[in-house]
Amino acid sequence: MDLPVINLPDVQANKPAIAINLTRVGVTEVKKLVEIARVGKRPIVLISKFKIFVDLPHDRKGANLSRNFEAIGEVLEEAIASPVMGIEQLCGEVARRLLSCHEYATRAEVHMESEYIIKRQSPQTHMNCQEVVNIFAKATAIRGENVLIRKVIGAEVIGMTACPCAQEIMREKAQKELIDLGVPSKTVAAFLMKVPMATHNQRGIGTISIEVHEDNEISIEDIINVIEMSMSSRVYELLKRTDEAYVVETAHANPKFVEDCVRTMAKNVVNKFKHLPDDSVITIKQVNEESIHRHNAFAERQSLLGELREELNRQ
Amino acid sequence: MDLPVINLPDVQANKPAIAINLTRVGVTEVKKLVEIARVGKRPIVLISKFKIFVDLPHDRKGANLSRNFEAIGEVLEEAIASPVMGIEQLCGEVARRLLSCHEYATRAEVHMESEYIIKRQSPQTHMNCQEVVNIFAKATAIRGENVLIRKVIGAEVIGMTACPCAQEIMREKAQKELIDLGVPSKTVAAFLMKVPMATHNQRGIGTISIEVHEDNEISIEDIINVIEMSMSSRVYELLKRTDEAYVVETAHANPKFVEDCVRTMAKNVVNKFKHLPDDSVITIKQVNEESIHRHNAFAERQSLLGELREELNRQ
Amino acid sequence: MDLPVINLPDVQANKPAIAINLTRVGVTEVKKLVEIARVGKRPIVLISKFKIFVDLPHDRKGANLSRNFEAIGEVLEEAIASPVMGIEQLCGEVARRLLSCHEYATRAEVHMESEYIIKRQSPQTHMNCQEVVNIFAKATAIRGENVLIRKVIGAEVIGMTACPCAQEIMREKAQKELIDLGVPSKTVAAFLMKVPMATHNQRGIGTISIEVHEDNEISIEDIINVIEMSMSSRVYELLKRTDEAYVVETAHANPKFVEDCVRTMAKNVVNKFKHLPDDSVITIKQVNEESIHRHNAFAERQSLLGELREELNRQ
Amino acid sequence: MDLPVINLPDVQANKPAIAINLTRVGVTEVKKLVEIARVGKRPIVLISKFKIFVDLPHDRKGANLSRNFEAIGEVLEEAIASPVMGIEQLCGEVARRLLSCHEYATRAEVHMESEYIIKRQSPQTHMNCQEVVNIFAKATAIRGENVLIRKVIGAEVIGMTACPCAQEIMREKAQKELIDLGVPSKTVAAFLMKVPMATHNQRGIGTISIEVHEDNEISIEDIINVIEMSMSSRVYELLKRTDEAYVVETAHANPKFVEDCVRTMAKNVVNKFKHLPDDSVITIKQVNEESIHRHNAFAERQSLLGELREELNRQ
Repeated sequence: MDLPVINLPDVQANKPAIAINLTRVGVTEVKKLVEIARVGKRPIVLISKFKIFVDLPHDRKGANLSRNFEAIGEVLEEAIASPVMGIEQLCGEVARRLLSCHEYATRAEVHMESEYIIKRQSPQTHMNCQEVVNIFAKATAIRGENVLIRKVIGAEVIGMTACPCAQEIMREKAQKELIDLGVPSKTVAAFLMKVPMATHNQRGIGTISIEVHEDNEISIEDIINVIEMSMSSRVYELLKRTDEAYVVETAHANPKFVEDCVRTMAKNVVNKFKHLPDDSVITIKQVNEESIHRHNAFAERQSLLGELREELNRQ
Repeated sequence: MDLPVINLPDVQANKPAIAINLTRVGVTEVKKLVEIARVGKRPIVLISKFKIFVDLPHDRKGANLSRNFEAIGEVLEEAIASPVMGIEQLCGEVARRLLSCHEYATRAEVHMESEYIIKRQSPQTHMNCQEVVNIFAKATAIRGENVLIRKVIGAEVIGMTACPCAQEIMREKAQKELIDLGVPSKTVAAFLMKVPMATHNQRGIGTISIEVHEDNEISIEDIINVIEMSMSSRVYELLKRTDEAYVVETAHANPKFVEDCVRTMAKNVVNKFKHLPDDSVITIKQVNEESIHRHNAFAERQSLLGELREELNRQ
Repeated sequence: MDLPVINLPDVQANKPAIAINLTRVGVTEVKKLVEIARVGKRPIVLISKFKIFVDLPHDRKGANLSRNFEAIGEVLEEAIASPVMGIEQLCGEVARRLLSCHEYATRAEVHMESEYIIKRQSPQTHMNCQEVVNIFAKATAIRGENVLIRKVIGAEVIGMTACPCAQEIMREKAQKELIDLGVPSKTVAAFLMKVPMATHNQRGIGTISIEVHEDNEISIEDIINVIEMSMSSRVYELLKRTDEAYVVETAHANPKFVEDCVRTMAKNVVNKFKHLPDDSVITIKQVNEESIHRHNAFAERQSLLGELREELNRQ
Repeated sequence: MDLPVINLPDVQANKPAIAINLTRVGVTEVKKLVEIARVGKRPIVLISKFKIFVDLPHDRKGANLSRNFEAIGEVLEEAIASPVMGIEQLCGEVARRLLSCHEYATRAEVHMESEYIIKRQSPQTHMNCQEVVNIFAKATAIRGENVLIRKVIGAEVIGMTACPCAQEIMREKAQKELIDLGVPSKTVAAFLMKVPMATHNQRGIGTISIEVHEDNEISIEDIINVIEMSMSSRVYELLKRTDEAYVVETAHANPKFVEDCVRTMAKNVVNKFKHLPDDSVITIKQVNEESIHRHNAFAERQSLLGELREELNRQ
């Protein structure tokens, strides 16, 4: 008589009872220490959160998820040994290795996100400070004659936005008061050119992600800089009084709607990334945590880099 | 001499300095009390979180975001007055109204999510208990000769999953011990058919979302039921001892990988929603918060309903 | 020969292997629909999150946690039937009932928190809008000759704060520019009295909690009002242009440090809650999500109401 | 005629309009890169989140919050230069420095929390894996003849817990089935001693924090080890099949209620930290994310180390 289980085959290689293809099978919330070597500097150390997936054909019961950990472990070992590797290349390497160890998969996907410390100086007193930004990367490897890899890299950075609309009204009010007090309109105009009036201002969160073919190079520092320069002002962790005045004045001299921030980022992306091909996929987002509401303002543009170039040339 | 600002036109209708189209402009984290009328019952009361967007052409500086609040306010007033309206219809109505009040927009999008209390009874002692599930809906209105509306409705429900792989090993061990103790193999087989052995088990989170044309009807209760019946066992907020034993035994008699949960949901979706057209877009996800790891297991299927039907018929 | 388990006593009533007292044993993340009756109005419906604890003596292995659900279920049934009951009374009732059903416990604790929708009008155009605030309550029941109950009620409300320090610098700058442009100093002074200058402003989150004996009554609406009136301005979900100008001007005419917000709340608490005894425990907190930094500013006062009264009288 | 502002004194040193003492004024959500030197090893690199407070007397309008950043910046520079410094010593140093630079404060408080990567090996195949735990520290400096410092250090670690109660019922069922199949009761007993039966199991989160005087030394690794060994089993990021079976069997052979986890930690704390004085403050918490419910089970003990010693000796 047969026992229900005699020896133990790989359960996951069995045929499943319901033969449905799966788009993604894998693991999420995987945290790993990532060390990225840099030429002539100490390595960058990140604690990164990964999501790692492969697809699964309808005739296979399970993916061997522990293999994902071996693949990522190997690549992380090599990353610290290799001379230079960006976070999106690291994801690309893991994705490539997943296709090797999951022989049934046609597609592998690796996402990572991390906090990243950048060094800045306060704008007037030039004191050193550290700023935290969120960075992320993704790679998709597609099996074919050769493995094709698409990779994404991006960042999310906090800055300050001041509202142009409320400022217009406050400027009108100032103008009327000065005129009523007998100040000549020429003087009023000169004053209002020099001193920006009040408005509501708040933290804004700008996000840019860029998707390209494997051989395109993108600097995460460039992405961070583009986001920082596209709001009303940067923010800083350490501001002495003159720094604080400088930030407030800069932001008020440079008011921006949530829509303006996205458009400014779009223009700056086109200017900064001239070497990237037209089929690069650009996603630009801005969320303003409005100081006058409990809700946020939001704007987004998703497009090919070629489309952005065309829209800007048209002007 | 001209003053810098003489009278105040609608700043947002101005041409922007950078003439870039925007995919989405709007508001997020908007919370509203939603009351849904029901025939012959008290209305359902939800606190829902909304995201509301329109697109913005390159020649317009800003969207008048306050109009979004007027549009949603009106629809919510009507929802409680009208005889019956699902949450996805409610989103559809708001989206339609956004196109009316943002005359420049070609596309409007409304997302909502909410906690929803359902009533259940414990499985053996039949005590009443309340269960919280997350529900969500989305509608997209596209301007054309007629306004075209696509709508999404879905739910995210917690259940219990028990791992088949570790259970196989534990069953083998039990078998070996019984044989070693001299129990006849026929008796061993009979025992192992009746008493499921130990394995790791955990909370699993199943999610189904269904996207259809405006005139298709989908019951959120049906979606919740499909998710609940597709894991190893349901979970309950109130379990007396016999209930607890029943849940543990049910889960262990019905072990499922994360992949199995998605495939079971896929099959149950096909069976339950026979009235929906083949071009309905189905997204099915399962996340298992593995009790043996800090990370989660994940599986997903995204496809047209027609494709799922075909894959299941092929068998 | 004895089998390892013959019949099944209440495991949790056993003596534990390690005879250590426990301060709190219970359940967290319990979500329940709460309906609070109101005289002459429709009931308030809340989805509330509960934490429910009792203490456990060293000679008892476990608390029967399912009893907590029966206790809370009964009280919630009664709450909707009873004429009026505040959320802190509801917690008190559950705590009292826990002592009845956990006969070994000397102390029971019930916490609840919830989102609560309040109705407001925009300040100039008087359009209706809904605002979401967080409310919370807690009750502790202590077994003695009579059961002694202490209860806590509180709220967390978002408002707007404008920084006085940066505004001083901006005002100085405006003054200097006007003087340099030849405007008489008297006119400058008059102008700066009427038009508040720019500064950074942001969302602030004010929190007040009040702990009293069971028989003291506290209105949650009063707490919410005190918080709302203690920042530079209220915030609103719906603002037309004149409303927005009003909010910006109000906030800038009323700049407040994070410290000022707490002190203003303290003064307003003393004024509003004259009927409460000196031994009421007051906790007041303010968090400002600084628009010029990634970090927040924070201030807090914890004290007896009697101490606050004394400090204010001393002036 | 006087202008409203002639020269700009330190606004924050002014007398406030409302002369109320403040318990805590400071900053939260401050993120910094922390490097901790180790003898003979590479430094540990952490991204830590800080909260930094001082108290503020009633006669002073504001605290100069930017000084907090200078104080923490200096100490972090020194930490990487100094031979060895634990995270709680680092907090102590910052707190001491805050009292120097806020001359009006009588009390300074520094909190930090961080993710920390530890190295482990899978239990049977001995593969290397990384585990993430949360660590935290706090220091309070109180001004007096000498500055008095109390410090706290702790960790929060995920493990696995298996429920003893449901297991009893499943064991009873197994026993009954075997007896009914004619297996002798002696054999049944022997089998059930060797093979643990099924039950529900889940992620548990254990937390221990220890508060001591400045000169007591506590190893964070010891705290992490105590938490790990006090649940039904450890969890691992990488498990091959034999490892997985080992973890499942270990957990089921060692079932624990949420109460048992806290008591086991209490006993292990007493055994491990024999060098700490009786007035050390111990807080021990366990949260089990029950696989059969949506809610969590919770237990906690707060006490002096001396009390725990006494309770354990009494037995």
